[in-house]
Amino acid sequence: MDLDTALASVESQLHTSVASDTSLLSEASRHMFAAGGKRLRPRLLLLAYSAAGGPELGQAVPLATAIEIIHTASLIHDDINDHSELRRGRPTINARWGTTVALLTGDFLFTKAYQLMAPYSSQVNAALAEACVALVEGETLQVETAKAGSLDRETYFRIISKKTASLFAAAARLGALQAGAAADTVAALATYGYNVGLAFQIVDDVLDVIGDPAALGKPVGADLVQGKFGLPALTTPTAMRETVAALAEHLVNNGTIEEALRQAHKFAGRAATALDLLPPSSARSALIALARSAVERDH
Amino acid sequence: MDLDTALASVESQLHTSVASDTSLLSEASRHMFAAGGKRLRPRLLLLAYSAAGGPELGQAVPLATAIEIIHTASLIHDDINDHSELRRGRPTINARWGTTVALLTGDFLFTKAYQLMAPYSSQVNAALAEACVALVEGETLQVETAKAGSLDRETYFRIISKKTASLFAAAARLGALQAGAAADTVAALATYGYNVGLAFQIVDDVLDVIGDPAALGKPVGADLVQGKFGLPALTTPTAMRETVAALAEHLVNNGTIEEALRQAHKFAGRAATALDLLPPSSARSALIALARSAVERDH
Repeated sequence: MDLDTALASVESQLHTSVASDTSLLSEASRHMFAAGGKRLRPRLLLLAYSAAGGPELGQAVPLATAIEIIHTASLIHDDINDHSELRRGRPTINARWGTTVALLTGDFLFTKAYQLMAPYSSQVNAALAEACVALVEGETLQVETAKAGSLDRETYFRIISKKTASLFAAAARLGALQAGAAADTVAALATYGYNVGLAFQIVDDVLDVIGDPAALGKPVGADLVQGKFGLPALTTPTAMRETVAALAEHLVNNGTIEEALRQAHKFAGRAATALDLLPPSSARSALIALARSAVERDH
Repeated sequence: MDLDTALASVESQLHTSVASDTSLLSEASRHMFAAGGKRLRPRLLLLAYSAAGGPELGQAVPLATAIEIIHTASLIHDDINDHSELRRGRPTINARWGTTVALLTGDFLFTKAYQLMAPYSSQVNAALAEACVALVEGETLQVETAKAGSLDRETYFRIISKKTASLFAAAARLGALQAGAAADTVAALATYGYNVGLAFQIVDDVLDVIGDPAALGKPVGADLVQGKFGLPALTTPTAMRETVAALAEHLVNNGTIEEALRQAHKFAGRAATALDLLPPSSARSALIALARSAVERDH
């Protein structure tokens, strides 16, 4: 099975795995899946599996599906907390079906991911569970920080490390573990995933400030307005936070955006360097390209 | 390790397992645990382990902790959906910290249960995952039914089967599986758990109508008001649903409460009968007593 076939298989498994006689849960879940998304975590997991010498990509497909399901569940619950109405160019579940259905659909997806993971080893499950815990801790830290209205650089890194980089690291780690890789290969791929996750999230936060709403499929400035400032807003006076446009201009003019992108490139570079340990392969090259594309993107 | 020691160990593990550097999550989780609760699912799991011949109760403690954590997570998310302000005589998490924190604490507990389960076998994890899926499906079905304002007897049983009996069945099944029991013993204990769950939920719904608020630690009639009628309300004209007191009186007078309790006793009896297959033991006797106490209670 090649990568494209495996990704198509993930796509199909996303839809079949949420079958339920409670049809509302299937419908709402598929509404999210049908909106697309980059499928970055499953891709990363599958490539890590191959780069670590995994013999049959099909064996990693349920893991790749599970990690995308968990990511989707967290987006659904985020959209409730943020009162978001648009996601990937489509109405959010809370906007279309209400908060209760959104909450239950997120729960449903988490239980479905758990079910998909049950046949796998304790080691693989422990790695994913740790990332899931970190994800929820990161979200909570973000909510607390936004409410307090204070965000220093250290806290920002703790948040994105937990809420984003942990799941990217787990994706790579799971692929490597499932491939039966040696401990140093597993560690190298986890380091790769972690740094790609940091780079990816910083660019996400930059795009929230200076991105094109049409390319993004959602309004810009949403995080800024809610006080969920990413890296770019660290040096911004409180008074300016009221106007998104003024704030964006300020952040560009004072070099914050440039500094943030410099950081993102640094992490993407570290991700690529971590792969030096691995033997050359088309999967390794694809991972290096993926790290680059995480920072060089407009959506 | 005897049962009381094992239950004390579960209690302690509930608190330690939610340790987090995001202290709000620990605090909110422990707020729920400290309120007590019957710990019926862990007790049932531990007794099933012993009744199935399990040699060392300590081996089942993390499973018992995990199942109580999942139950608690579902209560926290229920309280959001029902806008409940009181649970076990204490403010709910949503009442005390707001909806967002309650949502994230429920998610956190679910990920912590997943983490506790990771070291266990695929078979045990698959059984618990199936029950978790059913739990969310049952909650969703209940929400849909309440919204539609229609509830027939068949749908009522589907709801309580999924939202309550599945997790009770899983508790017993997990105990038996962990004990290394033969398939027929596992099945007998699962049947026991399933029927205790049905009996328990029917009595819960009855107590919501005719219970004593002081003994329950929460207002009565809450489910009635929200259209989440249990069995007792099946034969009630819509017009009467507006007044809790009038409705309760009507349900008593027309024999619905009596019929519901008759049903509950029937399921408790089936639960006890399922244990005929097992050799006599103090654990088996305790399970039979537990089935009885699930129906003969005032809170």
